[in-house]
Amino acid sequence: MTKSSKEVEEGLAFIPKFDADGLITAVVTDAKSGDVLMVAHMNEEALRKTIASGEAWYYSRSRKALWRKGETSGHVQRVIELRVDCDQDALWLRVDQQGPGACHTGRRSCFYRAIALGKTGAVTLEFRDAEKQFDPDSVYTKK
Amino acid sequence: MTKSSKEVEEGLAFIPKFDADGLITAVVTDAKSGDVLMVAHMNEEALRKTIASGEAWYYSRSRKALWRKGETSGHVQRVIELRVDCDQDALWLRVDQQGPGACHTGRRSCFYRAIALGKTGAVTLEFRDAEKQFDPDSVYTKK
Repeated sequence: MTKSSKEVEEGLAFIPKFDADGLITAVVTDAKSGDVLMVAHMNEEALRKTIASGEAWYYSRSRKALWRKGETSGHVQRVIELRVDCDQDALWLRVDQQGPGACHTGRRSCFYRAIALGKTGAVTLEFRDAEKQFDPDSVYTKK
Repeated sequence: MTKSSKEVEEGLAFIPKFDADGLITAVVTDAKSGDVLMVAHMNEEALRKTIASGEAWYYSRSRKALWRKGETSGHVQRVIELRVDCDQDALWLRVDQQGPGACHTGRRSCFYRAIALGKTGAVTLEFRDAEKQFDPDSVYTKK
């Protein structure tokens, strides 16, 4: 049953809109700095577990598995606030990031490279806040 | 040709990964407040125009059309910084939002409702920062 856009946009019923793969986009920001830490996806179960526990759960598209953030690394995300957007197809998590970082490469944020603006030809990246905060090889190696 | 994950994650070549529909997710935050304003999508052309002009262009999935943000409303987004994430399948735009708001409903941000945490049963929303900053009917009505 399709809900009217007024109901979805102006109502207080939570009607998350999962995509064809059963996923919804989740933007994660650091509650203190406001920086975007990562963009991930949730399936219905990950969303339910996040709401119930107050800790972030996602669905890994590459591993095709439910994933409790920080399960291996200990870098858990405590959710300070969870919001949904106007058409209810995206979520915003403001989190208290435990440990040194959110990114599997060892950085605080997954967004450690910037694109120079005002370019029309070939575009290259430059590092921004790209210092590694932890060693992914040692953190993710199964003991 | 598939690039190695090391090249994608640690290199300075910009290799945006568009999905099966030719789109990449763009998270937009207010450069001043750090709040997430919206989540949108770009196709290759929207991304190219954004980089060249320093103003945000998107691709509207509902209208199936390239879309210069603020074209109708005047609520243009000047891009302060554009970043890409580790696996290059998401973009983060820090913008200077012109005009009263980014959301087509009249709010500053599209994320004007929060979900209470710690719930296991039925979940409802509550308004947060949901005051309308402009009247969408007058802003979007073609003169």
